[in-house]
Amino acid sequence: MWPQTRITKMLKIKYPIIQAPMAGGITSPELVAAVSNAGGLGSLAAGYMSPDEIRNAIINIRALTNKPFGVNLFIPEKPHTTKKQINGMIKILNKVCKPFETRINQGTDGFSFEDQIIVLIEEKIPVFSFTFGLLEKKWLKKFKNNKTKIIGTATSVAEAKILERHGIDLIVAQGYEAGGHRGNFLGNPNDSLIGNMALIPQIVDNVTIPIIAAGGIMDARGILAATLLGVDAIQMGTAFITCKESGAHISYKKALLKAKHDNTILTRSFSGKLARGIKNKYIELMEPYQDKILDYPIQHHLTQPIRKMATKNGVTNFMSLWSGQAAYLSQELTASQLIQSLNKNIEIIIKKINQ
Amino acid sequence: MWPQTRITKMLKIKYPIIQAPMAGGITSPELVAAVSNAGGLGSLAAGYMSPDEIRNAIINIRALTNKPFGVNLFIPEKPHTTKKQINGMIKILNKVCKPFETRINQGTDGFSFEDQIIVLIEEKIPVFSFTFGLLEKKWLKKFKNNKTKIIGTATSVAEAKILERHGIDLIVAQGYEAGGHRGNFLGNPNDSLIGNMALIPQIVDNVTIPIIAAGGIMDARGILAATLLGVDAIQMGTAFITCKESGAHISYKKALLKAKHDNTILTRSFSGKLARGIKNKYIELMEPYQDKILDYPIQHHLTQPIRKMATKNGVTNFMSLWSGQAAYLSQELTASQLIQSLNKNIEIIIKKINQ
Repeated sequence: MWPQTRITKMLKIKYPIIQAPMAGGITSPELVAAVSNAGGLGSLAAGYMSPDEIRNAIINIRALTNKPFGVNLFIPEKPHTTKKQINGMIKILNKVCKPFETRINQGTDGFSFEDQIIVLIEEKIPVFSFTFGLLEKKWLKKFKNNKTKIIGTATSVAEAKILERHGIDLIVAQGYEAGGHRGNFLGNPNDSLIGNMALIPQIVDNVTIPIIAAGGIMDARGILAATLLGVDAIQMGTAFITCKESGAHISYKKALLKAKHDNTILTRSFSGKLARGIKNKYIELMEPYQDKILDYPIQHHLTQPIRKMATKNGVTNFMSLWSGQAAYLSQELTASQLIQSLNKNIEIIIKKINQ
Repeated sequence: MWPQTRITKMLKIKYPIIQAPMAGGITSPELVAAVSNAGGLGSLAAGYMSPDEIRNAIINIRALTNKPFGVNLFIPEKPHTTKKQINGMIKILNKVCKPFETRINQGTDGFSFEDQIIVLIEEKIPVFSFTFGLLEKKWLKKFKNNKTKIIGTATSVAEAKILERHGIDLIVAQGYEAGGHRGNFLGNPNDSLIGNMALIPQIVDNVTIPIIAAGGIMDARGILAATLLGVDAIQMGTAFITCKESGAHISYKKALLKAKHDNTILTRSFSGKLARGIKNKYIELMEPYQDKILDYPIQHHLTQPIRKMATKNGVTNFMSLWSGQAAYLSQELTASQLIQSLNKNIEIIIKKINQ
């Protein structure tokens, strides 16, 4: 049962442990390579990165490991937001974020999804994952020609069925417990908040391609529990944020390490898209303006300078402290130590079951 | 590991499977006794029952089994609701529930918590469970004198710690996935919605008394997964609603049996207290009036006649179809068949792990 699964075979990795792609500089080439070198699958979150940054990161990862790794992109969305609404939100943010005397302006990325994905195809990456929707068939075909394995994200049975029909290789089942952005792409995000205890079996029972569990899994108990529920691999995000190689700011790591129990909340205030993070002052101050939050990625672009400045200064009150519901299990280890300790503890539990 | 645990020993049951107390006539004496006779712990939901009804049900259960069983009560709460607010809600309900031409009036139970609990003490029941708060010390003492084992409900680490300090024997950890009322009793119910994958380990790690997992667990996979996460027993509600002995209306059973995936939602519209049930027309029609929903149990009393009439006529659109997030695994079996099949499948999985 452990550690060989359909997924370790397909992705050519030793352990069915995937380090989640987490945007905002967390998934440094050092972290990605360390996870892959330790026998898991490291993943670069490239959603907010420019084509040049992506190519450089891939080159750096390849300099550090010859093992498979993944790269993640966000499928683009069309926001429905007027100039007037944007100006309204700029006023709110300037008021709420006064401590920084920041001047909010409407920004954009300056590059397109196409610019980003072309780099990944040129680089013939081993694994590609996408979030927030479906990948256009033309890209799917190009990846298949490169023998790149493709992972999508589902938060419900309906989404998992669509992804399977779409022809991808693997599905991440993202439970309600998961930190960061909700990956739903059908209907209202509030309608696909399903706890992993119920979500994993219903997705496993409804598709035939292998499933990866994500959300609230931080230790050997969680990995084995999800495995018994039927998945072929586990994706962990929060568990890797506090790793030595992670690019997360020290104050973000400390916020996770000091958690004694779940203290997260689902919020749209940072990016316009529902996401789970540790409750802080910014989330609290934005509470009265929930009906004014703009569509993703407009809200994301408006709040990006605030979050960057807050991160630079280590002010957790205005950072997006994405976290799953089991952050209290965070440890300060290297990625290799974490994976080794997970494997050891899993073997201990399996031995106990055998007695 | 299976089936002996600290809880099977403490409660003198064969399997660590507890049938959840579910109000509204589901937990008929036949169901409670059938579960206990099959080696689990049947539980009578007596929260909405009069003292005479409770005593009769206990007599009926004892006529059907000599095995241990539990009885559950709701700790009373003080609603903060004005006469004007009540009249406003009566108007809304009369409008929303027009199909029944029902005339909503403010009702009460006509009996007190004290009236109810005295019956349980006189009857020296084997197991007592309570929800929505803490049990007064005087009752705790009387139960302890009777050697009645006492179970409380927690939805967060903070609640679990308070319950343990309070001196009870066991704690139900109620995950986000759970059907029916949220058992939280500290702070805002929206702040203690934690998926079982994350909730179980954090409660197990923070208290020493044995924990019972509840929420989204319907089959052998879920039972074993929760066991690996550290609990000593599993409480299942939805899985028992469709059992032959359950008192649930046939149309309620059918709604569960036809579920293909999670189609539940958290709502306050039925009772004033947050609870999970299958989405239906009543929930939808009440959506615009969320700020007018009255405190529990006032809202409960106002909507009780609607739900009773809807149940009598099998109109699922106006019934409270409480359900967890894994209802798609519902089966039409006797309680004994269900428990036997769970045990058999668990043994099969354990054998596979051993290979």
